[in-house]
Amino acid sequence: MGNPRAAMLVIGDEILSGRTRDSNMHYLAGELTRLGIDLCEVRMVPDNHAAIVAAVRALAGAHDHLFTSGGIGPTHDDITADAVAAAMGAKIGLRADAMALLAAHYDRQGLPFNAARQRMARIPDGASLIDNPISVAPGFALGNVHVLAGVPKIFEAMVASVLPKLTGGAPLLSQSLRVLRGEGEIAGEFGALAAEFPDLSMGSYPFTLNGAYGTNLVIRGTDPARLDAAMMRLTRLFG
Amino acid sequence: MGNPRAAMLVIGDEILSGRTRDSNMHYLAGELTRLGIDLCEVRMVPDNHAAIVAAVRALAGAHDHLFTSGGIGPTHDDITADAVAAAMGAKIGLRADAMALLAAHYDRQGLPFNAARQRMARIPDGASLIDNPISVAPGFALGNVHVLAGVPKIFEAMVASVLPKLTGGAPLLSQSLRVLRGEGEIAGEFGALAAEFPDLSMGSYPFTLNGAYGTNLVIRGTDPARLDAAMMRLTRLFG
Repeated sequence: MGNPRAAMLVIGDEILSGRTRDSNMHYLAGELTRLGIDLCEVRMVPDNHAAIVAAVRALAGAHDHLFTSGGIGPTHDDITADAVAAAMGAKIGLRADAMALLAAHYDRQGLPFNAARQRMARIPDGASLIDNPISVAPGFALGNVHVLAGVPKIFEAMVASVLPKLTGGAPLLSQSLRVLRGEGEIAGEFGALAAEFPDLSMGSYPFTLNGAYGTNLVIRGTDPARLDAAMMRLTRLFG
Repeated sequence: MGNPRAAMLVIGDEILSGRTRDSNMHYLAGELTRLGIDLCEVRMVPDNHAAIVAAVRALAGAHDHLFTSGGIGPTHDDITADAVAAAMGAKIGLRADAMALLAAHYDRQGLPFNAARQRMARIPDGASLIDNPISVAPGFALGNVHVLAGVPKIFEAMVASVLPKLTGGAPLLSQSLRVLRGEGEIAGEFGALAAEFPDLSMGSYPFTLNGAYGTNLVIRGTDPARLDAAMMRLTRLFG
């Protein structure tokens, strides 16, 4: 209720082909939850201009924030910046501030600032740069779209650059109870309890231990007092 | 070109809150790639009826196959079967064949076949059941939508039940070359090579090793001869 709503777009052929297992979604989900921003939808698309443009338009239009991951490096398959610019109706070109950052970086390293590396200074008009403390090449924010790198360490560093600037809501709190009974055994009473607390979200997650069924019962919500009240009832039922 | 196109929908609050790290997407991606079915888009949504209905309609309408993961257990937060039925305009109720499977299972275990467990026999009219060799409660296929469990072991077993029945295309093959040079150094020549082989997809994935930059260059395609030709050129350039 009232928390800012976010979406994420993971971009890359390597994710959809199964070559690489994405870890950025799980990382961002945890960080947003702590900050009180609700992650409402995630999409994953390949390195395809039309697919990225369509997803950016749909997700940025329906949420307070959109975070993208991947496709902002120096190679020909890095097409995210251009696709985001197209989706948002912005022009894009080599930007002086990004060029200066990168030129100084490669100068320090004694490496040529060639055309491929300059590609990472393609930033849409009107965007603000997102700091990259790992490898300098910046991300950017254009409107409500935050464009971050795909390499997990760099993605995580950019998330740390961005999140303190956003206004969060009430952090989503959770408490859980581990029960050594199967879901089907506790479902009736658990569902009745959930119906009594419509302001909380209750979920059950089965596991097996030495061949026996168990269930993790999780209660999520933003009001600690309500969470405590529900947990007390839950513990009385199944503790 | 011509391979069947698939999408996936991952359903569950626990994924979007960051509590659980999804592994089903990565597993399915690898299996589909081997079978020659192109995974073109993935979406992740919470346990919300309207969100699931909208995603199922959009993804099933635009792809040859849609695979869903999660939300078919016995508890109140398991709403996938009803949402898929609504999305596809099918009626849903307790189905005799699923009831018989589950009744026999709980009878063998000496457990009551209560209302919560019967919920897992809610199957849309016209759907065919998907075998669950782990915990019996079936998935189902309705039209081009394959509804699978979220628990990874059960998801994987259901994928193994479903995939042999689908017609694959040309498996996506890949070869890769590991280069101890940064992306920015090889991007120009690599991009030019990619432009010469528009029927292949070429991607570059940076890594760091002892503080030095390296790049995995990956070539993907369905024609082994073209893949070999491109790899030979790639090796001559950077090997």
